[in-house]
Amino acid sequence: MNLHGRDLLTTQDWSVEEIEKTLDLSFDFKKNRYNHPLRNCLDRRTFMMFFYNPSVRTRQSFEAAATELGGHAQFLEPKSMRLKTSKSAGETVQDAAEVMSRYSCGIGLRVLETAIEEYGQGHELLEEYAEYASVPIISMAHDKFHPCQGFADVMGMRLHGGKDLKGKKLLQVWGRGALVRSWCSIQESILVNTRLGMDVTLAHPEGYDLDPEVIKWCEENADASGGEFEIVHDLEEGYDGADFVYSRNWMTADFYDNMNKHGVDAAKKIEIERAMKYDDWISTKDWMAKTNNAFFTHCGPVDRNSEVTDEVVDSEKSIVYDVAENRLHVQKAIMALTMGIK
Amino acid sequence: MNLHGRDLLTTQDWSVEEIEKTLDLSFDFKKNRYNHPLRNCLDRRTFMMFFYNPSVRTRQSFEAAATELGGHAQFLEPKSMRLKTSKSAGETVQDAAEVMSRYSCGIGLRVLETAIEEYGQGHELLEEYAEYASVPIISMAHDKFHPCQGFADVMGMRLHGGKDLKGKKLLQVWGRGALVRSWCSIQESILVNTRLGMDVTLAHPEGYDLDPEVIKWCEENADASGGEFEIVHDLEEGYDGADFVYSRNWMTADFYDNMNKHGVDAAKKIEIERAMKYDDWISTKDWMAKTNNAFFTHCGPVDRNSEVTDEVVDSEKSIVYDVAENRLHVQKAIMALTMGIK
Amino acid sequence: MNLHGRDLLTTQDWSVEEIEKTLDLSFDFKKNRYNHPLRNCLDRRTFMMFFYNPSVRTRQSFEAAATELGGHAQFLEPKSMRLKTSKSAGETVQDAAEVMSRYSCGIGLRVLETAIEEYGQGHELLEEYAEYASVPIISMAHDKFHPCQGFADVMGMRLHGGKDLKGKKLLQVWGRGALVRSWCSIQESILVNTRLGMDVTLAHPEGYDLDPEVIKWCEENADASGGEFEIVHDLEEGYDGADFVYSRNWMTADFYDNMNKHGVDAAKKIEIERAMKYDDWISTKDWMAKTNNAFFTHCGPVDRNSEVTDEVVDSEKSIVYDVAENRLHVQKAIMALTMGIK
Repeated sequence: MNLHGRDLLTTQDWSVEEIEKTLDLSFDFKKNRYNHPLRNCLDRRTFMMFFYNPSVRTRQSFEAAATELGGHAQFLEPKSMRLKTSKSAGETVQDAAEVMSRYSCGIGLRVLETAIEEYGQGHELLEEYAEYASVPIISMAHDKFHPCQGFADVMGMRLHGGKDLKGKKLLQVWGRGALVRSWCSIQESILVNTRLGMDVTLAHPEGYDLDPEVIKWCEENADASGGEFEIVHDLEEGYDGADFVYSRNWMTADFYDNMNKHGVDAAKKIEIERAMKYDDWISTKDWMAKTNNAFFTHCGPVDRNSEVTDEVVDSEKSIVYDVAENRLHVQKAIMALTMGIK
Repeated sequence: MNLHGRDLLTTQDWSVEEIEKTLDLSFDFKKNRYNHPLRNCLDRRTFMMFFYNPSVRTRQSFEAAATELGGHAQFLEPKSMRLKTSKSAGETVQDAAEVMSRYSCGIGLRVLETAIEEYGQGHELLEEYAEYASVPIISMAHDKFHPCQGFADVMGMRLHGGKDLKGKKLLQVWGRGALVRSWCSIQESILVNTRLGMDVTLAHPEGYDLDPEVIKWCEENADASGGEFEIVHDLEEGYDGADFVYSRNWMTADFYDNMNKHGVDAAKKIEIERAMKYDDWISTKDWMAKTNNAFFTHCGPVDRNSEVTDEVVDSEKSIVYDVAENRLHVQKAIMALTMGIK
Repeated sequence: MNLHGRDLLTTQDWSVEEIEKTLDLSFDFKKNRYNHPLRNCLDRRTFMMFFYNPSVRTRQSFEAAATELGGHAQFLEPKSMRLKTSKSAGETVQDAAEVMSRYSCGIGLRVLETAIEEYGQGHELLEEYAEYASVPIISMAHDKFHPCQGFADVMGMRLHGGKDLKGKKLLQVWGRGALVRSWCSIQESILVNTRLGMDVTLAHPEGYDLDPEVIKWCEENADASGGEFEIVHDLEEGYDGADFVYSRNWMTADFYDNMNKHGVDAAKKIEIERAMKYDDWISTKDWMAKTNNAFFTHCGPVDRNSEVTDEVVDSEKSIVYDVAENRLHVQKAIMALTMGIK
């Protein structure tokens, strides 16, 4: 097993052994943040962070990760670039990828819904970069997947629930919310956790279906790992006996159509109005009482009192800040393994 | 005395001993910029610079300071963040502060008038960050104070006037100007210099009063240090016998109201029209002739020929570039003491 | 010969020996990218990158160059600065240059057509910075010249055509295109290559004349170096026997007037309409067949199928990615020689 030179578009592309190796190194970096033997494995190397969409912790954690490994992450936004689009001349992805490969040890890309026209185009763009780049392409969240978040979620649950989570129940539950979230973190979570053998329950109101192909993979993952995967539309059923609760809003599949027809702001407004009607779909103390004393987890940023009450997210069972911190450790591990100096 | 882990919202919060220790280290860094024993005290650490308002030298000097100590400063703007505001969902200050603390060794914040609605809210925001962050919060200028500038001012005057400035007269004088300046640099200057025993004369036209609480503290500072503090509205009185002249524009207290009623641009226009009528309130060679051969100082950027004539600011007695340089040294000292590797 | 402290506004300001020394070090850095004896010559130093105009590879390659030499490049845009303009108060170039010199080991500036009002003002701005800065001023492309690109072009041709290019024919040919390019890369190319003894043919349609002073210098350069310099308006004549073909669009001298009268977008539209009529002015396989099996070179980003066909730019004879990579190496060499720790 050698991850050097590998792209990371989703954990689903990596073997279980590769995922475990990455998690092991992430825990190592957490234990030994500044004096790890690999602490200088990006010595004077450049990691390109290319943000088609803005970001909070992704930018902060990737830039800090590169710094902690002795390298430097460049913060790049397409607005300050002249990439070719359907409407204007400019540099092709091929040329951008080829040239960035000459300057850097790896390229991170963030491409979410509002930067594309339909579901899947973000993933295609990453694949196009991967085709031409001679350095690893790392997803910093795109329309389909968010592998770094997936790693951070697993790490957080293991930190608090122990290394062996087989047979533990993860409730991945849709939450109300005014932020019109991407599918990427959710899809990555249910993929990686079925892969590693958890019992994953995906709960959401009717109409909030995710990508059918991802659902099929989750079923296959569960079969292969000996875990379980089910989809429910009932909160009682979802919370019952859960060991971990991950409540997070996501958009409906209609968002793309509405955005193309009415613009981004109108499409968001439609989603928010639709989402805010589901009064029960928020993690409260009462719902949490139906679980097996579950930990509360979230990929952040938290939309407090929409997705989860302050009481729950500020409780002793909340692991959200640890999960956020893990982004740093897992990204250091991913960089060290895929692009570190050998 | 141990400054490790301390916030810096204003020099007024630090003891005289702590201020002196910081100044000593600043002079040390000036003497030995790249080979100081603490030259690597931020080794691979991240300092977060969070700019609610843009900046010239604050950004340049903080980013250079982190680099010179072996670390890296991230340049962050709220426009590329999704912080919660009164109008939109997003991350709370609590969550942002908790998470940034996991990634960084310290957080700098700049929050000036146009980012808030009334005087004091910037300071409250810094206090809120300080409450939740587990790393030091450093003001990079906010509505009330600008401690790094205050340190740089003192260092500049000592560099040219000697270490013991007790009994020396500092004229802190309002200047005309088209830049509608904050109160922060002025208030920090009169606080720290009364604290350290200078004779401080604050001169401004009627109607340009500063925060009454700050004025009260200046009086108390002068009592405690054996210095003097007075407010005059007469330029003759102000320049007479001064050892240092610091001419700088600032806004009236009406700015906030006007901004809330008419918008930022209109509020600025009102201030500029009002300010530019005071023809005499500019540091000229003639005014300087009434001083005790005073040095001219300024926090920069200088609004030439409004606050001060070219002749004065380009004269041999001008110390403005040294003061600007000092920002680098004092910020290195502040970082080394509050967040450096022990 | 000592380049320490020298500005670089165009290769024309440097002696042939200085140019050769820089190229030698560039080749050295290419051979030994991370372990070169000068690998730490910007240790903890700050290089200021000041972008009046946005950039793709200039920003990426300068920031990577500083990182690879142990330093850090700050990415600065005037929008986040408060520089004085003809319309608003702010910091003068003198003050900005003096202060940045206190924080940094060197300052890079990019000032293209849309940031100025007439040809030459960008160069004057760089000269003004150079007058007041006490650290080297490096052009990161301005209205007249682009020395780093010029160095990268020469390095690319030598890499593929051997060190001695005297007597080799470079066709510098205008190309159609929708990007309304600056004169800077072209003028730098014809200057440096006549300087070093190549036979340079500049080919363009009538009306696309460059700066007459630059043309005069090219003639003088060719006389001094034993090379040749000619201007043709005929493509047959241009491609005939060429060893290197460098096809690139540039604007007419009318652009400035149109921009001042009608705005940037309208001026660009006029240029694009005018340029796209020249159907033959694109490097195709057929044109390349008339050369001496020429290499195709370009400064990037390439406007594919306007300036050059995919077939040519993706052929084995294309050296465009190597030329792009060279930007990194030559900028490391320039930084090491002009501002590296001695």
